[in-house]
Amino acid sequence: MATTKTPDATRRSERSRRAIFDAALELVGEVGYDKLTIEGIASRAGVGKQTIYRWWPSKAAVLLDAFIVDAGDEPIELPDTGDLAADLKFVLRATVDEFNDPKFEAPYRALAVAGANDPELSEQFVNRLQDTGVQAYVERLRRAQEAGTVAERVDLRIAAEMILSPFSQRWLMRTAPLTYDFVDTLVDLVLTGITRR
Amino acid sequence: MATTKTPDATRRSERSRRAIFDAALELVGEVGYDKLTIEGIASRAGVGKQTIYRWWPSKAAVLLDAFIVDAGDEPIELPDTGDLAADLKFVLRATVDEFNDPKFEAPYRALAVAGANDPELSEQFVNRLQDTGVQAYVERLRRAQEAGTVAERVDLRIAAEMILSPFSQRWLMRTAPLTYDFVDTLVDLVLTGITRR
Repeated sequence: MATTKTPDATRRSERSRRAIFDAALELVGEVGYDKLTIEGIASRAGVGKQTIYRWWPSKAAVLLDAFIVDAGDEPIELPDTGDLAADLKFVLRATVDEFNDPKFEAPYRALAVAGANDPELSEQFVNRLQDTGVQAYVERLRRAQEAGTVAERVDLRIAAEMILSPFSQRWLMRTAPLTYDFVDTLVDLVLTGITRR
Repeated sequence: MATTKTPDATRRSERSRRAIFDAALELVGEVGYDKLTIEGIASRAGVGKQTIYRWWPSKAAVLLDAFIVDAGDEPIELPDTGDLAADLKFVLRATVDEFNDPKFEAPYRALAVAGANDPELSEQFVNRLQDTGVQAYVERLRRAQEAGTVAERVDLRIAAEMILSPFSQRWLMRTAPLTYDFVDTLVDLVLTGITRR
């Protein structure tokens, strides 16, 4: 399609897409997933609803793309300086900042709540987003395992969950604040374990 | 109050309370927290709604008591055989069985979702229930710390979160199954850490 368009039309499309994503993320944070509609997104974005239906079959599809584009600034790969603890703390501290920003966290919360409620949505959507995050950690841990830092028989998926789930749980259930101290301590405990060496 | 009642009236009250709790837990699992009403609970329990209002000021208060009574069979204190890993695995395996039982998990899910959505409900209610669970783990870890198994400077709250949050997250977001293997591996990794000793 893009090859048949003039450069101006391509730029206009790109602006519309960006406006639609921004509108979708704002609205889902304001009204929740259940009350989000294609009409609402179109109206907020200042486009016709046919423009949205031309590109996406459902509100879930719009949101999935919006989250993926929104996450585009973040590294898909975790840094690897050779210091596993420092690399994990660096990324988690940046994540603390994001999740303490109401503008950032509102759409994620709406989606997480909808996913917890609705197994099908969770299957199609929430897990796919969440899994991208978990996989990035698994990959970093795999490199540490190859380098000999992480023990050979460690289940890397469960290790990633030990790092990410306490973070997600504090955030989602608001059981305790997300701070740099918390993530630093968490990383150290996951690496060394809690029993006396 | 109870001292002024005849034994028969006390037994009747006790039966009504139990019927109200059962109705509240069933209904919240079926319709979710938002659509739960005192009228609905009264109707399902076969009592007048004034009976409920006489004992509880709100649906949240009914549910809180229902969950507390429902959890009454479980140990508030974790076993302490001196083998920390075995004790944790024993309790977590029982919890796996509970959360794989739809009848048990439905009301918890409804409540967790409502709590994730509503900060005030979370504050009053969900965290209070959740904290009871976390505290039982913290206490068992404290005894292990006093016995010299757990290292001295370990933050026991975060250690408990490393055990419980991966479990809760898998359950709530349905990211992966809850199995005995999962909890066994998790406990071992939390105790020993992931880096090579």
